[in-house]
Amino acid sequence: MTIETKAIRTREEGGVMVATLASSPLNLMGPEIIRDLVTLIPYLREKANDIRVVVFDSAAPDFFSAHVDMAQLAATRDELDKHGPGTRFTDLYHDISTLPQVTIATIAGRVGGAGSEFALSCDMRFASRERATFLQMEVGVGLIPGAGGIQHLPRLMGRGRALEVMLSADDYDADLAERYGWINRALPDAELQPFVDRLARRIATFPPAAITTVKRRVDAYMLPDRDEMGEDIRLFRNLASQPVTQARLAELFAKGMQTDGPLERSIPAAVLELAEHAQ
Amino acid sequence: MTIETKAIRTREEGGVMVATLASSPLNLMGPEIIRDLVTLIPYLREKANDIRVVVFDSAAPDFFSAHVDMAQLAATRDELDKHGPGTRFTDLYHDISTLPQVTIATIAGRVGGAGSEFALSCDMRFASRERATFLQMEVGVGLIPGAGGIQHLPRLMGRGRALEVMLSADDYDADLAERYGWINRALPDAELQPFVDRLARRIATFPPAAITTVKRRVDAYMLPDRDEMGEDIRLFRNLASQPVTQARLAELFAKGMQTDGPLERSIPAAVLELAEHAQ
Amino acid sequence: MTIETKAIRTREEGGVMVATLASSPLNLMGPEIIRDLVTLIPYLREKANDIRVVVFDSAAPDFFSAHVDMAQLAATRDELDKHGPGTRFTDLYHDISTLPQVTIATIAGRVGGAGSEFALSCDMRFASRERATFLQMEVGVGLIPGAGGIQHLPRLMGRGRALEVMLSADDYDADLAERYGWINRALPDAELQPFVDRLARRIATFPPAAITTVKRRVDAYMLPDRDEMGEDIRLFRNLASQPVTQARLAELFAKGMQTDGPLERSIPAAVLELAEHAQ
Repeated sequence: MTIETKAIRTREEGGVMVATLASSPLNLMGPEIIRDLVTLIPYLREKANDIRVVVFDSAAPDFFSAHVDMAQLAATRDELDKHGPGTRFTDLYHDISTLPQVTIATIAGRVGGAGSEFALSCDMRFASRERATFLQMEVGVGLIPGAGGIQHLPRLMGRGRALEVMLSADDYDADLAERYGWINRALPDAELQPFVDRLARRIATFPPAAITTVKRRVDAYMLPDRDEMGEDIRLFRNLASQPVTQARLAELFAKGMQTDGPLERSIPAAVLELAEHAQ
Repeated sequence: MTIETKAIRTREEGGVMVATLASSPLNLMGPEIIRDLVTLIPYLREKANDIRVVVFDSAAPDFFSAHVDMAQLAATRDELDKHGPGTRFTDLYHDISTLPQVTIATIAGRVGGAGSEFALSCDMRFASRERATFLQMEVGVGLIPGAGGIQHLPRLMGRGRALEVMLSADDYDADLAERYGWINRALPDAELQPFVDRLARRIATFPPAAITTVKRRVDAYMLPDRDEMGEDIRLFRNLASQPVTQARLAELFAKGMQTDGPLERSIPAAVLELAEHAQ
Repeated sequence: MTIETKAIRTREEGGVMVATLASSPLNLMGPEIIRDLVTLIPYLREKANDIRVVVFDSAAPDFFSAHVDMAQLAATRDELDKHGPGTRFTDLYHDISTLPQVTIATIAGRVGGAGSEFALSCDMRFASRERATFLQMEVGVGLIPGAGGIQHLPRLMGRGRALEVMLSADDYDADLAERYGWINRALPDAELQPFVDRLARRIATFPPAAITTVKRRVDAYMLPDRDEMGEDIRLFRNLASQPVTQARLAELFAKGMQTDGPLERSIPAAVLELAEHAQ
């Protein structure tokens, strides 16, 4: 069995797959990356004995993944349907969480919205102290973190901090993300890759039955429920069709959203500057 | 619709209400503040479109809120009945948590017992690194944190730290409260107010439907259950009638509890000095 | 009622029992310590009015408790049967958690596997910043943390960090253990004992009904379920009989496991060096 992907570059060595998001410059969670995740998931299930750990990182210098591609929601849904008719965004992320492999997100740039929620669906998250920035901006445009954030964040950091993170729609640096429990650890940028490499290679030598049993027993009570996540994405879609949300998104697109410019690096300021639309 | 309160001073600006506990010097959770909360809750529900964020702070220099008024439990219950016959203390706090607004507690003094539990019922908590001190003293007098502490604290900080906090009946400074997850963050005193102002004004510009949806979806599984909180307050009342508790409280009252003196600033030492009563 | 134990030395003073694990050098969780825990539990239940706090520490200079005694599982099970026919390892730990006393683990050395899980079954954990090291090594030999770790760790530190801790099978120092929430606090070694002494003596002066009510109400929703813990230990046993696990354990025994030598102080390196066995 071989794998053909384009927006996610993969290489395998010693039981570890490094899967690099390479849909530059923003690694938007859109049809390209989703298509490759749809390809990757059954491949990883099939190769459970050979690939033990998957490390997700990014080829883009400034972004792990900016957010969902708001301009191609329909095309993304077409790709999701190839995973199974009616597959929801959240189903795909839930399937990432329940892979037989251990999944690690290595975050050395900006990560926001459904990009952040992709990282949340992984088993562990390590980030560059200097370069990583975390953001759930959805509420700032009238949406909600519909791809798992509402389910994962309060479990990781408690109600108070999770509400702050989601309702502030603001940037959080890696140190604060560590203090809040959003990530496992913030590491100096120079140490991040060696640290994750060592951890991944280490875990890859351990007996797989033990690993999958730990994951299964933890997830029996700690992993967000698939249908609760599905309800969140349903509510996200409802809000996306509201005039206030449409107007705010249109204004952000007009200012350069989804292009490799300053807007994508200052979304917290941009959502604050949005004119108050009729609500 | 206008609001008339006395022990809680309110001002509204740009979608933010600042509600200042002004039942000096201790801001005891007694008939005065409870009466005003009973007034405030339906007002805030009614004005959900205009008021988006409520910031609770204190006019007393040394206290956010010391604790429940143990000398006026009956009068407090009369005020609670005006919220609805049979309203329990915990029902009022639960209603604070489920307000359509985002609620933020700004804590720049001592906060203890049911005062702390009021802060726990808010969506977020920020505190002065130099001036805030946290305390659940109930066990030291033979009571339990019956107004939500038993439900909120373990969810925020885990079983081990929550048991320590509640069973030690000791002071925790703001830095430790942050490390434990009791509060979102400890900030330098000079930065606290500007930080919360900025955050509140920021959130107040965001579309309300998104905010209420996030709160509703988080609280669907993270907010303590109203009846479990009610069981805690029932047990609190049972313990309050025990001779050992009565004796301990009487001794603290004799030493100056509920007056603006040294006792209220050194409850952890005072409960340790209590003579051992028959148990 | 008197108590006769050998591997756990006890002394009582002022409502506090100090219970010192003295099955040197490793304090393996084997028949000796289990026999004494089986003796201790009904004694503590009986003396609930006199003994209010139990502090568990260790007489071994380098170890709080290394792990379960893998060479004497059958003998350990015989001791467990004396607690009640069919008592599982996890039942004993669950009974530790539900003691009427407040239990505190003072950790000033290495603690691993079921030794760590014993500490997790206590109400609080304080550790020496310089001397404590934490380890769940089970996955490294093909096992799982079957004595409560799978249930306690995610509740204390969230899914991401708990999976890291359990799947890395690596050492965690006290500072990191504190940041992750594994322990309440890391303290300078010189301050650890005085801190715990003061806390224990303090709690011992408080009315017992308040203490047991707090524990009961917290544990009603935060304590891991006895049967879920039992399922974990069942899976542990299944994995223990697998050839890969047997081979890995045999190799570790050949290299000095369960003796007072370098192997027990470098298990994370040892499990990485294990030859890859047929899986």
